[in-house]
Amino acid sequence: VPSGTARQVRVSLDLMGGDAAPGAVVDAALLVAAEQPDVRVVLVGPADVATAALAERSAADRFEVVPASEVVAMSEDPARAVRSKKDSTLRVAARLVRDGACDATVSAGSTGAAMATALFTLGRLPGMSRPAVAVVVPALAGPLVLLDAGATVDVEPALLGQLALAGAAYASVRLGIAAPRVGLLSNGAEPGKGDALRKEAHTLLAALPVDFVGNVEGDDVPMGGRADVVVTDGFTGNVLLKGLEGALRMLSGSLLAAFTATDERKAAAKALTPAFGEVAALLDPDSSGGAVLLGVKGVSVVAHGAASPRAIASAVALAAQAVREDLVGRTATALQELVDRSSAAVEV
Amino acid sequence: VPSGTARQVRVSLDLMGGDAAPGAVVDAALLVAAEQPDVRVVLVGPADVATAALAERSAADRFEVVPASEVVAMSEDPARAVRSKKDSTLRVAARLVRDGACDATVSAGSTGAAMATALFTLGRLPGMSRPAVAVVVPALAGPLVLLDAGATVDVEPALLGQLALAGAAYASVRLGIAAPRVGLLSNGAEPGKGDALRKEAHTLLAALPVDFVGNVEGDDVPMGGRADVVVTDGFTGNVLLKGLEGALRMLSGSLLAAFTATDERKAAAKALTPAFGEVAALLDPDSSGGAVLLGVKGVSVVAHGAASPRAIASAVALAAQAVREDLVGRTATALQELVDRSSAAVEV
Repeated sequence: VPSGTARQVRVSLDLMGGDAAPGAVVDAALLVAAEQPDVRVVLVGPADVATAALAERSAADRFEVVPASEVVAMSEDPARAVRSKKDSTLRVAARLVRDGACDATVSAGSTGAAMATALFTLGRLPGMSRPAVAVVVPALAGPLVLLDAGATVDVEPALLGQLALAGAAYASVRLGIAAPRVGLLSNGAEPGKGDALRKEAHTLLAALPVDFVGNVEGDDVPMGGRADVVVTDGFTGNVLLKGLEGALRMLSGSLLAAFTATDERKAAAKALTPAFGEVAALLDPDSSGGAVLLGVKGVSVVAHGAASPRAIASAVALAAQAVREDLVGRTATALQELVDRSSAAVEV
Repeated sequence: VPSGTARQVRVSLDLMGGDAAPGAVVDAALLVAAEQPDVRVVLVGPADVATAALAERSAADRFEVVPASEVVAMSEDPARAVRSKKDSTLRVAARLVRDGACDATVSAGSTGAAMATALFTLGRLPGMSRPAVAVVVPALAGPLVLLDAGATVDVEPALLGQLALAGAAYASVRLGIAAPRVGLLSNGAEPGKGDALRKEAHTLLAALPVDFVGNVEGDDVPMGGRADVVVTDGFTGNVLLKGLEGALRMLSGSLLAAFTATDERKAAAKALTPAFGEVAALLDPDSSGGAVLLGVKGVSVVAHGAASPRAIASAVALAAQAVREDLVGRTATALQELVDRSSAAVEV
């Protein structure tokens, strides 16, 4: 590595992940090669599929290909598929990270399978009982981290404490906030609000070494401003995130219908098209860069199954950023507090 | 009652409920008097406050006033306040319904206090273990009922079954759908998806005499089309509903900023103002008509604390509709199925 340049980051990319694989994945690799000079992509998939997809794009020999013969389908039970398919693209890609041949792994395949693979191949970080999916929400007042977005649906209060620490570490890496404000998602802002899980977690979070701002509500996630990290269980996080996506689609659908109702409106809507474009960019899944799996010993990023080449390239950029800024090390340090306490408590 | 006209509905209205009480409440009563000839409003509150508010509007003697000397504040613990304040506006207004002097009661005060009052004064319907707040969401594909929107946050699977039956009865009254499709809110559409609560409830709902369409997701609530009734616990329902409100505020905020960035855009945005108005009307809390408390022996409707006179008048119209279409009787009939089963099972 020449001095003065950023360290090159090696990313193993699941050739078979996502609805438009392998084509969209190879197109994403070409985007990365063109736009992210400090990232080297390693494609992981069946050799013949890789050769054909690369040849079609006159890109033979542009990327290293590591062979993997099996594919985990979106419809398969994640844990079972990952265990039984030893030569799946997901497992081979994660093994490259575990063995130090790559620095991070990215897939647009099943989030559940990517999670099971990361747990199985990379292992959990000390202090984290279950992994979590962390997403960045482009809230009106500025971006914030929401976690868990769907990894673990049956949750104990202790896990919400772990999420608070891991989420704060992630916000500091991803959003550059030194001391992120952490909020607990609840059904009211007052400290007494919440179900039994939230009430217990509230006490627990207040005792952690994070800037705990107390309960936040559903509208604080799209509006932003009250917390940089919003902690919740994977069930609620998933329902809320999908609800927000749906609300934006609902409103754009209503606006579109209302705007094209008359010729005069059509003309005005045309004049405003660039403005719509700016707002759409805020919400653009292509630039949102995928979700990080927190709590595992390695950088693993999932992109949406319907991800475009641009979106997969953004997920690769996110993975590279996480490597450069040592997300895993910083998360481990944040969780160390919990490890120390539990050692003191139970003399492990 | 002259033949050929609709039956007059008597509604007790909490004079002290809401941020802008008593003024907004009296203004709402005047709107009802002008626009809803078949509804008679009875104001419930301190006599001197009522007299002054009516005199200010040159409306002395326009409404019957039933005196009540105490007010439950938004910040009070609902159950405690309702129990200790025997002469509160909420309790006196509910008592009028219990004793047959009124047909329904409406308040823009604390939802929790209205709920506690309804339970305490009107009592639960047989078959319903906890009451629920039901709201109508103006989804893109057509309106749907979401419940529970925040009444009960710690939930057993059996309650979700009760909500399915009560929600179907409500959708049939409010939306005029003979056999509403009922969906269970979960973190994925497949039957195996969900936390432990949802998995158990899924089996239970499938065995009920409703058109159960299985799991629905967060985006199905704003988008609509998959279910007419969406069943969830009060924690998740509250987080999702507030999230949807926030998403719409977020997008309108972003659009506003983008549209007024240049003079040309300002002109185009002006031309589109009526179209924005149409979309805003879809989402207008003033016309959404409040939320119904389901599972109590009487019609009780809550309006938002920030409700305008127009919104409170809509809540009164909703209460009158629920009375005319016998919402309570129809909900009781729907729940009878559960009562019969449990009688057969435990020989009550």
